[in-house]
Amino acid sequence: MAVPALVPLIEEHTASPTVQAVFSDIRNTKQIDFVPAFWRALANQPELLAATWRQVKEVMHPESVGQTSSLDARTREIIAIAVSATNGCSYCMNSHTAALQKQGGNAALLGEIMRVVALFNATNALAEGFQIEPDVRPNFTT
Amino acid sequence: MAVPALVPLIEEHTASPTVQAVFSDIRNTKQIDFVPAFWRALANQPELLAATWRQVKEVMHPESVGQTSSLDARTREIIAIAVSATNGCSYCMNSHTAALQKQGGNAALLGEIMRVVALFNATNALAEGFQIEPDVRPNFTT
Amino acid sequence: MAVPALVPLIEEHTASPTVQAVFSDIRNTKQIDFVPAFWRALANQPELLAATWRQVKEVMHPESVGQTSSLDARTREIIAIAVSATNGCSYCMNSHTAALQKQGGNAALLGEIMRVVALFNATNALAEGFQIEPDVRPNFTT
Amino acid sequence: MAVPALVPLIEEHTASPTVQAVFSDIRNTKQIDFVPAFWRALANQPELLAATWRQVKEVMHPESVGQTSSLDARTREIIAIAVSATNGCSYCMNSHTAALQKQGGNAALLGEIMRVVALFNATNALAEGFQIEPDVRPNFTT
Amino acid sequence: MAVPALVPLIEEHTASPTVQAVFSDIRNTKQIDFVPAFWRALANQPELLAATWRQVKEVMHPESVGQTSSLDARTREIIAIAVSATNGCSYCMNSHTAALQKQGGNAALLGEIMRVVALFNATNALAEGFQIEPDVRPNFTT
Amino acid sequence: MAVPALVPLIEEHTASPTVQAVFSDIRNTKQIDFVPAFWRALANQPELLAATWRQVKEVMHPESVGQTSSLDARTREIIAIAVSATNGCSYCMNSHTAALQKQGGNAALLGEIMRVVALFNATNALAEGFQIEPDVRPNFTT
Repeated sequence: MAVPALVPLIEEHTASPTVQAVFSDIRNTKQIDFVPAFWRALANQPELLAATWRQVKEVMHPESVGQTSSLDARTREIIAIAVSATNGCSYCMNSHTAALQKQGGNAALLGEIMRVVALFNATNALAEGFQIEPDVRPNFTT
Repeated sequence: MAVPALVPLIEEHTASPTVQAVFSDIRNTKQIDFVPAFWRALANQPELLAATWRQVKEVMHPESVGQTSSLDARTREIIAIAVSATNGCSYCMNSHTAALQKQGGNAALLGEIMRVVALFNATNALAEGFQIEPDVRPNFTT
Repeated sequence: MAVPALVPLIEEHTASPTVQAVFSDIRNTKQIDFVPAFWRALANQPELLAATWRQVKEVMHPESVGQTSSLDARTREIIAIAVSATNGCSYCMNSHTAALQKQGGNAALLGEIMRVVALFNATNALAEGFQIEPDVRPNFTT
Repeated sequence: MAVPALVPLIEEHTASPTVQAVFSDIRNTKQIDFVPAFWRALANQPELLAATWRQVKEVMHPESVGQTSSLDARTREIIAIAVSATNGCSYCMNSHTAALQKQGGNAALLGEIMRVVALFNATNALAEGFQIEPDVRPNFTT
Repeated sequence: MAVPALVPLIEEHTASPTVQAVFSDIRNTKQIDFVPAFWRALANQPELLAATWRQVKEVMHPESVGQTSSLDARTREIIAIAVSATNGCSYCMNSHTAALQKQGGNAALLGEIMRVVALFNATNALAEGFQIEPDVRPNFTT
Repeated sequence: MAVPALVPLIEEHTASPTVQAVFSDIRNTKQIDFVPAFWRALANQPELLAATWRQVKEVMHPESVGQTSSLDARTREIIAIAVSATNGCSYCMNSHTAALQKQGGNAALLGEIMRVVALFNATNALAEGFQIEPDVRPNFTT
């Protein structure tokens, strides 16, 4: 944590009003009392900060923008963890695990998620390796 | 589907009794009336078939081996889809989407899952790219 | 192309007015006379369609939303190709190569891009494999 | 940086004459006054060092070997960054960002690059996830 | 190493008898005098620990379960290193390199392996990028 | 196979003398009677063709350039397969499997390789997911 990010982490009190407004919305929406380093790094490019936050807000906090979702908050964090473990992204694993923990998750739940993640990383490699063609193509009708 | 896999797809009626027993267990456990190409490819190496099926059975059908899971069947398929889309595995997307559909999922649900998957593939790239250090390290106690 | 996507591809003339408006904006902004399959697939979930298009429009067509970018259009397509080749995404390679060609790119330019992409996929594997620590940490000041 | 790489980092003054010649060429071509850890690690296998450096020299410093490129030096570094962020390679992000900075890049430029990289990691996941077939196959003529 | 894993690392002397039995089998089979952090993390979910160890034991120590393999122990470690470098997994590179070293491998051997790994990460990106169709489909007969 | 690559596949009889010389060397070194599509695609950029072939020749056919390797030809193909399956590259799986078959490999050997590949894609995901720190850092002395 002594190691700096590749870009300066913008401080909330020296940020432009536009950036401050996003920071404040992040703290309020996520109910946390600090602005995570991820967002402070993005703030070097205010459009990137605004666009990424808008998307995270819509997808992970749909109720805050008047949308509904058939996936509950815990399932969304689980998907985030599955993607992050598959990509090997450490910052992401840390932050999504912290979020899962906040929702009542414990080490055993994380273990169950990782068990499924590990299995499908294995079977994905087998299916790709053997170049297996689909048995059937799912056919959703609208 | 005319394209063969890299290895011969073992036919059930010509398979060894050991392989036939696994094939039969797959059909029964998954309640399908054919043996998917994935398993027929693995059957070229019976130990690989047996070990992979045992693991899929334990993780995806825990009740069939007397285990319990705090993740329900739909959530497990959602994790499988998140991993498969992140890895870009087509056979896997086809089969897990078919499974989700069987559990009542529709194109809209798949769309919601993919929306979360896409978002975190984007933010993973940002976190990795900017080399951001964790804010906090979750601290599970046993 | 006879193979259907995993979800129905929404037809423009049967789409809801909201979806039609996005489709129309896509055709106009990209100056093409059809709606690519990618967008027709996303249209099964209108929020996903709208959010993804808004982001593509802002990033790839910044002038259309009154933003500026220090990256020109060709460099942005080159980045898209570098990401898509690294991820092995075929639909993406097809569509971004088509876009590059529209901007005057030819097979030789694509070859030069791919040469750089291939080199860094190789050196990435070496750096990750040998677990090499950074020599120096770039230090941007704001 | 106190952490050693997986292999010893060869010191320039104790290296064989062949390795010293490559090290010297690296310092001169890149106009730096030290040999980066990456190259010192590769030097454990002199053929790997020579082959990798030759390729980096040809691709990233084409003028030094009498070749030309239709990609300029900045665009080549941008591609290197796009690949490294997509692969999540930290050593690579550090060194390519340092190179970009040397060419006059700042945190805002890196932010714009990462914005495009993040977007296409998201859309790649969507295209792969929905298994979308190409609309059109670009057709370069020689 | 002062940094904790995301989950508590179970201590051998406080573990349940089931977990202790697996830990003991790991130490004996691998002929090491401690339980690696990887296994102590998995022990938070005893089924995951047992299933993963059973699979590692069968695949990497086939003689210990009365199986045979046409791949020798060194080749199996080489595959593990190739996968781990391609995925950029540091814990994995550390542990598999340690195992290779125990089998008599040195920095030069690791260098040769990495040279092949790097080459094919490069050519994979080229083949994916240019979307090249197979020349021929291998045709194994059983 | 009716699907064209993204770039024209250069025909041997219409190629420039430089490209023809590389094509001829490929056929002779690999002892095949055609030029694979991969090399015909690269030939759109003769430097890329020459540099890639030189590297493949040095790494995969070291005896042809008077080098030696402590990895035998079969082990090198096995590494190529491990990388290609992990990356999900189909052209690569096809061509390296064909090469393995030429060296006497059969479906059972491919199955054993894939079993190890699948296992370590699973354990890589676990190690990355749980963010486990190395137990020990291998320490090669030169």
